[in-house]
Amino acid sequence: MAESPAGEPREEASLALEDPIYREAVIDLLGAIAYGEISAFERLAEDAKLSPTLEDKVAIATMAATELGHVTLLRDRLADLGADPYAAMAPFREPIDLFHAHTAPSDWYEGLVKAYVGDGLAADFYREIAAYLDVRTRDLIIASLSDAGHSQFVIDRVRRAIAEDPRLGGRLALWGRRLMGEALTQAQRVAAEREPLSALLAGGVDRPGLDLAAIGRMFARITELHAARMLELGLDS
Amino acid sequence: MAESPAGEPREEASLALEDPIYREAVIDLLGAIAYGEISAFERLAEDAKLSPTLEDKVAIATMAATELGHVTLLRDRLADLGADPYAAMAPFREPIDLFHAHTAPSDWYEGLVKAYVGDGLAADFYREIAAYLDVRTRDLIIASLSDAGHSQFVIDRVRRAIAEDPRLGGRLALWGRRLMGEALTQAQRVAAEREPLSALLAGGVDRPGLDLAAIGRMFARITELHAARMLELGLDS
Repeated sequence: MAESPAGEPREEASLALEDPIYREAVIDLLGAIAYGEISAFERLAEDAKLSPTLEDKVAIATMAATELGHVTLLRDRLADLGADPYAAMAPFREPIDLFHAHTAPSDWYEGLVKAYVGDGLAADFYREIAAYLDVRTRDLIIASLSDAGHSQFVIDRVRRAIAEDPRLGGRLALWGRRLMGEALTQAQRVAAEREPLSALLAGGVDRPGLDLAAIGRMFARITELHAARMLELGLDS
Repeated sequence: MAESPAGEPREEASLALEDPIYREAVIDLLGAIAYGEISAFERLAEDAKLSPTLEDKVAIATMAATELGHVTLLRDRLADLGADPYAAMAPFREPIDLFHAHTAPSDWYEGLVKAYVGDGLAADFYREIAAYLDVRTRDLIIASLSDAGHSQFVIDRVRRAIAEDPRLGGRLALWGRRLMGEALTQAQRVAAEREPLSALLAGGVDRPGLDLAAIGRMFARITELHAARMLELGLDS
């Protein structure tokens, strides 16, 4: 490692990262998150074109810029771990691009719901995994998932639009379910294809993992948080 | 003003801004720069799609995010001045959008040259005007024009590509001239249409302005800096 903070977390991180399988899993995970953020930047920048006002455009563009801002941290950490950051991201391009191709918003409000719900789902999922990691990696992941308070903008806009046109609520509720379905499809695909990542969840000789029941509980928590977010937007989940 | 730094600059800014014509010109100028940055964000995000590698994509996307990051400062200052920031930007949408419509890059390298040369031209022009303004406004403008060191990336990429394919140099040199021509066309249009801005350059009873000779010298300086930038890229201007 080129650099690391002083104190306990450094020691813990170094020790855990001496296990090549764990290290590979962390590289995988950081690569996935980094590509997810690059991809989120691109999609939000694209959605910004649909903005009804310049103010809305700046709000969405700022969300895009925030996502991209996280990439630098992840990229630097990947390099510290001795990985080629872009090679680490490469395996996740196809599933993440497919997720976006299958969930291209057809209007401004679908874009807003996707920004809020999709970003939230990804963040919940990565936070769940982060709980099994060394402190330093966990802190990095949590820092790279912060949304800098843009959620309130989405909630306000979506709730106001539904109040004006209640039928929009029905359409957006279906849209939220589709986002959840596509996210699960691609997450399953990644779990099946990326052995280091699945091994991380399954645990190792000296590292606790998740059994099937624990994985079930994890998905239950993610589903609950998704429902809470939909409710915040004024939508059934 | 809602807030301002302590000391002399505050006094000077307050005094100058008591002149409603000056204040209107500053609002115009900050509005123009802010819309220019939003628009640059959009174009760079669009150009990022043409990136040959993920690393290049992140580099261009980071330039886009940097441009957008400046908007917050300008928007807050416009609000401090009692202006509706988005209304202040509105008059500049058409000329700036037209500039971009007339200079849509046809490939990755045209996009890179435009990012470097177009951004540089705008920055030189605004810096020239900033020299006639109160310290606080001047500092804000200069801060909002910093490119956070992304230029080197463009220079490296363009020079390397020309070394591999010298014909590209001829095409990009023509492209640079076209960018300059379009920028001048739109700048002239803005000068003709936005009275407060032209009045700022022309000066007032108690404020020095630019006579025709001074405007000529200003354009000579801008042209020289443009030529220097083209040379940095390995291109004739």
